[in-house]
Amino acid sequence: MATATDTTQRDKDLQDLIQRVEALEGSVAQDKLCLGVMKGDLDYTMAAFIIGLGAAAYDMEVDMFFTFWATAALRDPKKRAKKGFLDKMFGWMLPKGTGKLPLSKMQMGGIGPKMIRSVMKMHNAQSLEELIEQAAEMGIRIHVCTMSMDVMGIKKEELIDYPHMDFVGVGTFVDMFSNAKQCWFM
Amino acid sequence: MATATDTTQRDKDLQDLIQRVEALEGSVAQDKLCLGVMKGDLDYTMAAFIIGLGAAAYDMEVDMFFTFWATAALRDPKKRAKKGFLDKMFGWMLPKGTGKLPLSKMQMGGIGPKMIRSVMKMHNAQSLEELIEQAAEMGIRIHVCTMSMDVMGIKKEELIDYPHMDFVGVGTFVDMFSNAKQCWFM
Amino acid sequence: MATATDTTQRDKDLQDLIQRVEALEGSVAQDKLCLGVMKGDLDYTMAAFIIGLGAAAYDMEVDMFFTFWATAALRDPKKRAKKGFLDKMFGWMLPKGTGKLPLSKMQMGGIGPKMIRSVMKMHNAQSLEELIEQAAEMGIRIHVCTMSMDVMGIKKEELIDYPHMDFVGVGTFVDMFSNAKQCWFM
Repeated sequence: MATATDTTQRDKDLQDLIQRVEALEGSVAQDKLCLGVMKGDLDYTMAAFIIGLGAAAYDMEVDMFFTFWATAALRDPKKRAKKGFLDKMFGWMLPKGTGKLPLSKMQMGGIGPKMIRSVMKMHNAQSLEELIEQAAEMGIRIHVCTMSMDVMGIKKEELIDYPHMDFVGVGTFVDMFSNAKQCWFM
Repeated sequence: MATATDTTQRDKDLQDLIQRVEALEGSVAQDKLCLGVMKGDLDYTMAAFIIGLGAAAYDMEVDMFFTFWATAALRDPKKRAKKGFLDKMFGWMLPKGTGKLPLSKMQMGGIGPKMIRSVMKMHNAQSLEELIEQAAEMGIRIHVCTMSMDVMGIKKEELIDYPHMDFVGVGTFVDMFSNAKQCWFM
Repeated sequence: MATATDTTQRDKDLQDLIQRVEALEGSVAQDKLCLGVMKGDLDYTMAAFIIGLGAAAYDMEVDMFFTFWATAALRDPKKRAKKGFLDKMFGWMLPKGTGKLPLSKMQMGGIGPKMIRSVMKMHNAQSLEELIEQAAEMGIRIHVCTMSMDVMGIKKEELIDYPHMDFVGVGTFVDMFSNAKQCWFM
């Protein structure tokens, strides 16, 4: 029969174990995918949304962090923003929205992206614009890197209307990916 | 001495803890590396196999998902497939197998890849073709993205013979990486 | 009241659970970020250090693995190393240190990197050289891939002075990332 000593030891073991399990629960990755989108080419941006939507369909939470060149992909060609000279210059050089994104390969003076787009349409694959629309419906969050916007002279008022968009620094991104199940930089 | 109440409470605590540990065991990452291979250049494809083989040597399970441009790297130059006009056109523009892969840098009209290959040989590093052979021996799985094959007009019958190859959609890839220890997109 | 049988069973359950928790503790990812740096362009190398520093500020351990093209970014333009003909030739073609790194986009014959650098300065963002200095202070480790050094003919004596630098093979890298919370290849 259990003596008082045994019982006390067993209680201590159990309490100790509860604490260890709590620590584990705190450090285990959440069911979340975090995508750092930097390149901003048509093919890479589409890949990011296709994978993000795939993950969202499996009930993963999806956070996308748009930084460097990829911020230009979020520009709305119909919107305008007041800019200084240098920002204007960058603005001319960077693609004005998804419709102008180059391919990372086979660009061929602009023929490549048109070819890929028409072939994808033929195969009933969604266009980048449709993917972004669906991402909005699925609740995928887009976080835009404020430092990149500063450097490239991109203003909030020239970006697309997207329901789950905010503007964050690198610290927020670190916080985001540190407990995600997977995070890629693409 | 333990009273009936104490014992019941202790039992409840233990049962509760068992359930929490089970939940943790279900969500912890498996000893698996998952590589999304998209770029398909000689250097990036070699990097993917070198790292995959390194992980396999440490007893990690390795899954490679070949998508977009990288699918062309799996073509066997000796094989032929019946294709429509557009698929044929893509076929001409995409590299026909590992032997034709460009470098992501220092391509220099085809001299770069030859230089890298000969220098690697000099240093007794394995060629891409040898790496693929070894990957087959080590049981590394290659999953080819069916959507990419459709878009680029690449047919199963023109791909290399690889013992652990199958053809999957993005959903299977999501499933694959969601419980992997690490997953990269390169 | 607890019978001897109950107590024995409860002890067994508890011991069993302790073992399962130990196994979980062993397999859970450590608070560590692992960055595989391969591309070695100015923008990608800066991104790697910015994110590494962000993670270090959140008390994550940070390991950077420099491989392929990125090893050239670690060269010190003031240092010289004795080399054979082929290594010399590679040496001429590869950028000699951070000051010569191209951009992955908008290179424009060397104007792009100068523009980005001056705009970043204007916005009080740190230069790549300052980022590396700060990484040294924060204890970020740089591991240089020995195979890449061999292939590109890069010698230890021509690399920058960095307090936490060592020279490792792919096995060490696998070991490093297998228990990291996140690992990217960029």
